[in-house]
Formats: sequence, structure tokens, C-alpha cells
Amino acid sequence: MTPSAIRSAHARIRGHIRRTPVIEVSSPIVGAPPLSLKLECLQHSGSFKARGAFHNLLTRPAPAAGCATASGGNHGAAVAFAAQKLGIRARVFVPEIAGPAKIAKIKTYGTEAIIGGASYAEAQERCYAYVAESGALSIHPYDAVETIAGQGTLALEWEEDLERLALRKLGTVLIAVGGGGLIAGIAAWFAGRVKVVGVEPQGSRALHAALEANAPVDVAVKSLAADSLGAKRVGELNFEIAKQFVSQVVLVTDTAIAEAQRRLWADVSVVAEPGGAAAFAAIASGAYRPERDERVGILVCGANVDLAALALAPAGRDAAL
Amino acid sequence: MTPSAIRSAHARIRGHIRRTPVIEVSSPIVGAPPLSLKLECLQHSGSFKARGAFHNLLTRPAPAAGCATASGGNHGAAVAFAAQKLGIRARVFVPEIAGPAKIAKIKTYGTEAIIGGASYAEAQERCYAYVAESGALSIHPYDAVETIAGQGTLALEWEEDLERLALRKLGTVLIAVGGGGLIAGIAAWFAGRVKVVGVEPQGSRALHAALEANAPVDVAVKSLAADSLGAKRVGELNFEIAKQFVSQVVLVTDTAIAEAQRRLWADVSVVAEPGGAAAFAAIASGAYRPERDERVGILVCGANVDLAALALAPAGRDAAL
Repeated sequence: MTPSAIRSAHARIRGHIRRTPVIEVSSPIVGAPPLSLKLECLQHSGSFKARGAFHNLLTRPAPAAGCATASGGNHGAAVAFAAQKLGIRARVFVPEIAGPAKIAKIKTYGTEAIIGGASYAEAQERCYAYVAESGALSIHPYDAVETIAGQGTLALEWEEDLERLALRKLGTVLIAVGGGGLIAGIAAWFAGRVKVVGVEPQGSRALHAALEANAPVDVAVKSLAADSLGAKRVGELNFEIAKQFVSQVVLVTDTAIAEAQRRLWADVSVVAEPGGAAAFAAIASGAYRPERDERVGILVCGANVDLAALALAPAGRDAAL
Repeated sequence: MTPSAIRSAHARIRGHIRRTPVIEVSSPIVGAPPLSLKLECLQHSGSFKARGAFHNLLTRPAPAAGCATASGGNHGAAVAFAAQKLGIRARVFVPEIAGPAKIAKIKTYGTEAIIGGASYAEAQERCYAYVAESGALSIHPYDAVETIAGQGTLALEWEEDLERLALRKLGTVLIAVGGGGLIAGIAAWFAGRVKVVGVEPQGSRALHAALEANAPVDVAVKSLAADSLGAKRVGELNFEIAKQFVSQVVLVTDTAIAEAQRRLWADVSVVAEPGGAAAFAAIASGAYRPERDERVGILVCGANVDLAALALAPAGRDAAL
């Protein structure tokens, strides 16, 4: 996975995805340089997953049976969106924990979500069985080169837009990790030029555990963000890239994630789902402590949350960003 | 009100406000060029009003009594925010129709909202009485040069950022109108170079009526967007600028506004309050019909809405942007 593969992926998908905006906001750390937020939550289908979905469907021919995928919800919504736009049939398998906002979104794009299995991993088993039987094109949510290259395109845009807008270059980026496709694509783009830090919920730490064990291993998954970051094991490809280019993985509590969601809404009017707020939670909670003058970028990677649930979340501190 | 006055205002306030992002999204009109959305809803205090508030407080010295203002809510939140940041006392008068999200926001910034009067106009009377008695600095929400120049700074950024990002120039901008401070600032910046179209709710059409009567006149106010666009009469200064540089004013129904809010959330993951969605409603509902190949910019100007209320709004069509 090279920067030039990611540049090619961007050329292929750019007419289909949104170039999501960046915004500078004050750091929660007093005296620190402004944070650069990349608002990938405004992407088609409500998350970065649209990038990998389009990149798969634009590079791999789908048979008459169409395509199939398993997903905590965001990847499924993205595949449903991309398939609808490209006129391809799609089937999406989601686990019982998938949030209603995500299931509703999949349906919006003309695809029925097939709900079954307690975890993402079980939904993936059902998807593989269907693919074997139907011959449909399987689109892996994270452990596939097309997916990784697609997700990496957002790092290309981020860097390019900061330059075009004459804003300070990134020193470090904080990236939420589920199965690892997103961080692998981003780390492969930066290839050591920018420090890449993974952020995982304490209750869903697949990459943290893999780096500790020096191999992908299974972890138990229980987190507020499980419906987007709930992979029980990182992908093989993702692990290899992360080992090379991810500096560290920090863990955040569910409380810190909920507080980050509340604060992004209260201070920046940005709605993020739990997984989408995890990277911001790392800096707001102190789980990641940058050096003085370290320029930090925060990826807000998904918005697919029930607004009513977010509205009812308890309030914490109210320091303005 | 000249472009150079707006440029000076920007130089003065830029360290205090957010440079809000622009994003390209597909037009709801098939085959039309992409819309440019300026996401001013991500501004400090949740609306564009922070610009005028800072510009007032940074150019006009406040006495020991501090400053005072009347507001449907957004301007009050902005003054409270700016006053807190600059260490100035503030008193904000809001009418009974002010939304709970706005009143809560004012309080968040350390200022008590003084609720009274059925309409914005009545809250303004109470504010004037307090100013006369206390000597506090009065900050008019729209009919003041400092306010207008502050709001106009967003047009400067919009134009500059499209150029920096190598995106197509604006042909037309759609701008929601309440008392007219926002559209006056924007129209004064563009000064005829870009077509400026005002958007008002059918039930709150102060600028539409003023242009018809060739003078500011009182209108009855009843609209879903009354807590941000509910001025019963446009400002004198605003009217003079609008007469010169606003091409037309289109009217939108409350239904179209609610549908625009729903669609901005479903398709772009952007939360807009009713007044913040009015400009988008004009194009989505067909109230404004651009020429083929007309490049339209939509200002999303405010986000201060109760998320639970937005979550419960009924769904309409689901065509993706």
C-alpha cells in the first residue's frame, strides 16, 4: 500500500465522494496550537466508509448477483449508497447491535439490512456463507487493499487542503480504530511523515492488543462505540501497515467518548457518533497528551447516530473550544 | 458600508472567530452544478452572529456597566460568548419565543437571559429601557454598521476559500433574512459582483415587504423560524444596502424549511436550525429556480436547535444530494 496507490484511488473515486472540509478549532489544552478537524462525518452515507466502498465497486467488477458485505452499519450504508449510485445490487449483513440510525440509512439507499448475529464477526460469517452460495462480490469492510486505499484518500485531501488554505501542516493525527482499514490507509499515505496515533475504546482494543502480541489477536468487545469500532480482531493487512507506521494506540473510556460527542455538538455544532468522536475524546480527556506546540489533527469519521439519543446524553463541563 | 470596511472588520475579528468551512454538494436539481455550502452553523455560539458581536465589542469601548442586547437568541448567545471571551459584562433580553437551545447557550457563556415580551420587538424595547437607565453599551442585532460589517466578513472568507481551493466562483448566493444585517453585510461585500438572493419564511417577510413598499414596514411574524428570522421590520441601513445590491427575495413555507432541515441532516449530516436551513429550503423546494449552469452558494447560518426536536421531525423524500 503506497502513497501512489492512494493517489490513484483518489483519482478514481473523487467524482463520487465529497471532499470533506477541514476546520481549525481551539485545542482543549490551554496554550496549545489549534486542532485541525477533518469533518469526514459529512461524507456521503455519514462516514468515511463511502471512500472504500466506491473504490471497491469502481475497480472490481460485480457479477449479476451484485455485491455483499457485513458491517457494524457504516460500511453497509456506504456500500448500499455506492451500489445504488452505480446501479449494482447489494446485500448487507449487520449484527443485532447495529444502531437503528445505521439500519435506517442502509434502507434509505434501497438495500435491505439483513440483521443477525450478536457481533460484527458473526454477521461476517453469514455474509461469507451468502457469497459462497451466490457468487456475489464480497467487499470486506477493512481487510482489503481496495478498501484501505479508498480510506487513505482522506489523508491526501487533508494534507492538500491545509496547504491550499495556507494552514499549518499536520504534526500528528488521531484516528479511531475498529478493524484498522481507516488507520492503515491514512498511515500508508503519510508513510512516517506525520505521526499517526490510533484511538480505541478501552472495551474494543483490537489494534492495541495486536501491537502488544505482535500479531492480530481476538479481543472481547463491549463499548458505546461497538457499532462502528467493534471489530474483535484487526485485519492482517492493516496490522502490517500499522506495525510500520502507527506510533502508538491510546485507549479512551466510554464516558470520555460520550463527553466528546456532547462537546463537539455544544462547541462546534458537529454531530458525531461514538466512534466518530473517539479521536477527539483522546485529546479532550487527556488520554493523548501532545507535546507543547505539537500540531494535532483530529479525524471526525462518522455521524450516524440517533439525534434523540445524543440530545438526551448528560451534560458535563462546558469549556468552549 | 464598503468592501474595504468589511476587510478591516475581518482583520480585527479573525483571531476570535472560526473560519468556517465550505463544502461542495450535489444540487437537488438534476444536472445543475454542485452547490457550495458555507457551514457558518459551525461558528462559535452556533451562528454567524459571533462575527458582528466581536466586531462591536472590539471597536466600541464598553463602560463598566458592560453591554446589553436584545435577541431572538442567536445574537444574544453570540454577544454572551464574545463578552465572556473579552471579559465584558453582558445582559441579554430575549422574547418568550426564544428556543430553549438558544437560552441554554446564552447561560453556558455565563450570561443570564432575561426573558420577556412576546416578540423580538418587545424584548428590544426592554433592552433600550435598560440601556437608558444603566448606560450599558447597546449592541444592535442587525441595524448597526459594526454589526453589518462583522457579518459581511463571512462572504470575504467564502470567496477567498473557493479561490484557494480551486473551486468554481459563486454566481449567486442564497441568504436567509431576519432583520437584514447578514444579507446587508454579504451584499455589501459582493457589491453586485455576485447575485444576492434573500430568503424569508412566508410568515416573516420583512425584507420582501420593505422592497415592495420601498421602505421598511412592519409585518406580522409567525413562522417555525421566528426565533431567528422573526424581525417584524428590517433595519434602515440594511434596507438601503438591500435596495442597491439584493436582486430578489424569495419566500419559503415552514414545511419547506422543516424538510430542508431533515434533508441537510439525512444527506450531509449537518444540523441546521429552521432559520439556518431556510436558504437551502429555497433551492430544495423550488422557491428559487436557478438558470441552467448557475453556480449557487447556500449559507447555512445557524445550528441552535434542540436535537430531540429535530430527531422527531417527520421524514419526507429521501433523494440523496
